[in-house]
Amino acid sequence: MSEDLVGNVLVGQSGGPTAVINASLAGVISEALNHVDIEEIYGCLNGVLGILHEDLIDLAAESQQTIRGLKFTPGAALGTCRYKLKKQADFDRVLEVFKAHNIRYFFYAGGNDSQDTADKISKLAQAQGYALRVIGIPKTIDNDLVSTDHTPGYGSVIKYISTTIREIACDNAAMGQHDLVQIVEVMGRNAGWIAAGSALAKRREQPHDAPHLIYLPEVAFSAEKFVADVQRVLKREKFCLVVVGEGLVDADGNYVAAADKTDAFGHAQLGGAAEYLQGLVEQNLPGIKARTVKLGMAQRAAAHIGSKTDAEEAYLAGQMAVKAAIRGETDKMVTLLRGDNEHYTVETGLAPLSEIANGVKKLPREWISEDGVSMNHQFLRYATPLIQGETQVTYENGLPAFARLDKVSVDKVLPAYEA
Amino acid sequence: MSEDLVGNVLVGQSGGPTAVINASLAGVISEALNHVDIEEIYGCLNGVLGILHEDLIDLAAESQQTIRGLKFTPGAALGTCRYKLKKQADFDRVLEVFKAHNIRYFFYAGGNDSQDTADKISKLAQAQGYALRVIGIPKTIDNDLVSTDHTPGYGSVIKYISTTIREIACDNAAMGQHDLVQIVEVMGRNAGWIAAGSALAKRREQPHDAPHLIYLPEVAFSAEKFVADVQRVLKREKFCLVVVGEGLVDADGNYVAAADKTDAFGHAQLGGAAEYLQGLVEQNLPGIKARTVKLGMAQRAAAHIGSKTDAEEAYLAGQMAVKAAIRGETDKMVTLLRGDNEHYTVETGLAPLSEIANGVKKLPREWISEDGVSMNHQFLRYATPLIQGETQVTYENGLPAFARLDKVSVDKVLPAYEA
Repeated sequence: MSEDLVGNVLVGQSGGPTAVINASLAGVISEALNHVDIEEIYGCLNGVLGILHEDLIDLAAESQQTIRGLKFTPGAALGTCRYKLKKQADFDRVLEVFKAHNIRYFFYAGGNDSQDTADKISKLAQAQGYALRVIGIPKTIDNDLVSTDHTPGYGSVIKYISTTIREIACDNAAMGQHDLVQIVEVMGRNAGWIAAGSALAKRREQPHDAPHLIYLPEVAFSAEKFVADVQRVLKREKFCLVVVGEGLVDADGNYVAAADKTDAFGHAQLGGAAEYLQGLVEQNLPGIKARTVKLGMAQRAAAHIGSKTDAEEAYLAGQMAVKAAIRGETDKMVTLLRGDNEHYTVETGLAPLSEIANGVKKLPREWISEDGVSMNHQFLRYATPLIQGETQVTYENGLPAFARLDKVSVDKVLPAYEA
Repeated sequence: MSEDLVGNVLVGQSGGPTAVINASLAGVISEALNHVDIEEIYGCLNGVLGILHEDLIDLAAESQQTIRGLKFTPGAALGTCRYKLKKQADFDRVLEVFKAHNIRYFFYAGGNDSQDTADKISKLAQAQGYALRVIGIPKTIDNDLVSTDHTPGYGSVIKYISTTIREIACDNAAMGQHDLVQIVEVMGRNAGWIAAGSALAKRREQPHDAPHLIYLPEVAFSAEKFVADVQRVLKREKFCLVVVGEGLVDADGNYVAAADKTDAFGHAQLGGAAEYLQGLVEQNLPGIKARTVKLGMAQRAAAHIGSKTDAEEAYLAGQMAVKAAIRGETDKMVTLLRGDNEHYTVETGLAPLSEIANGVKKLPREWISEDGVSMNHQFLRYATPLIQGETQVTYENGLPAFARLDKVSVDKVLPAYEA
């Protein structure tokens, strides 16, 4: 047991939103209220940008109803950013803000770039002898964080995509005259976790259900094989439903549909994989129609069809982050550990932030079927538990009534930030 | 009261599927079971194509559970087609099949092209003195049928789209740094009914909620005005969410993003309106990112977020079609008539098939705000009741468990169809 550390909590959200990142926020707030060592519960607006600008809000001032609503509200209620702390002056400013507001507990929900940021803040505090406990909360639809069985956000995105595929399949089967190729593009820059999840749309023991073909970044794309794959399916089925991850690469490792833009972290900005495949169909298979669906940001925000399991685990991760920090842990991220039982169980653990920051979890090659375009039972066994249960969204006047924070500002005490 | 007519029912589905066309089918089957004049309940596979090919199935052989599941199963359980009966030989074949199977009641769910087909079949039967009662069931996400307040399928598609817009708005607001234009492309070839429905995503009294800009086929598109509209929103909001109907036209009436393809009815096959607007942003607003979502066929199949009101009305339309035919009505389509009360009520009526076949209901220009990019209270008062309530989808293993017909074939008695 570590020494008591009395002070304030700061919680932030970073990177791309998910359907359940706000559930983690609700978990942090609810748990923080349980501990006498925690005095104030602050949130920073727009991730580290809010720290730099001293844009803090008082989360204890929010209503119970709002906190409950966060459990099924998509987006990131605090706002998020993709700003990368680089300059030493920025890191110093973060510590200055922490000291000014007596922040002793810092919780940061995000992916590996965000955990890297948290790690660096933690190490700077240690170097300066400032008592601070930093715990990361896993968050990403991409499911690419190491040391955790899966990430909050993933279960919901694949539940949404599988539901959508199953619905489109009903539609396409009804129209079927062996001449329709339906191409659904999903997110996934470096790994095929999201595209792979669409395999759940198949009913058990019905290997010929849609999706018929799944193209993953893990398997080098060949236009010739694609055209042959489509022809094979169209011979057998009324239509061919293709799922493609945006990060599809060819044998040389180049994106098949790369734009020449990069984001703040230097990642290539993608898009257009579906149109690329549509073009291949039209050029190579005369008389065959190809139609595209691009779910884009809708997929990471689809709280109305969120996974209850995912939302509950996201909430749990927030709670456990607080508990770990109170216990004296720091510089770690909460992880989800799957039990060895026949029935799915999950416990939480902790892993060093640096380990998370520097790793990327790839979709295991042995979970992809030999044909390269479908997932085998190992993947299905892994992913099926993650989509179980439906979130209880509140509807008002026919639409989901999402929570909105009142955002009561904490008074600024420092000079304005100079970029 | 007309004379009793004893014989068999044939029901078919035509055109693009919706989230609730199967609810109408369930309504027909359930109601048909109530009437002693009805002996067998058959369905034709793939619309009129199934009649030509004598591909009939015995719907009374389906389980009660399956019929109940149809109420929230998307697609068209019987299959559908876009085949247009043209040759006299085709019409004669339809009558031949009807006579061979003693079809005395024909129910056809579809849009105006389909009601036109039903009308022609009915008139041919009359000309030949064959006693047949033909009742159409309205069906189209496009909401463009005349003589009916709205069409089954419309409420569900706009509930799905409004939900999606509200979710994407949560996501985009979280990321907001005044440089994101999010463009969501929705269906709607000739009318902006679907795009207009996205206006429901705004909370009451919150005119600045997303969607910020709605581009409809009813308003001639100007690239200059679009760029100015986007700039105006980005000055005020953290992001700009644009909804665009696929059938956007310029001042000369030409599609802004027309492909050079046509379907079997000669309609232009569209797509690419979102990419067109994305290009305008990138070319005219340096530094502003534009991202696209194309919901495609997902939108007309999204039963998991279907409107309960819509599903119930679709079921009712199926029931009332049977009741009308038993009463002796023919050559009419069931219509939905809104009550004059403060609270929304709906009754059914009947309108001549020929009236439906030849009309197209346009979105009233006076329901579009003066700015041309938002809907006023008249539209909201019209559309809000249509999305009320949530369908009770059955989930199995984390995903919607949709109904599938056993499709017990009716023995063929005629020579094969020759096209």
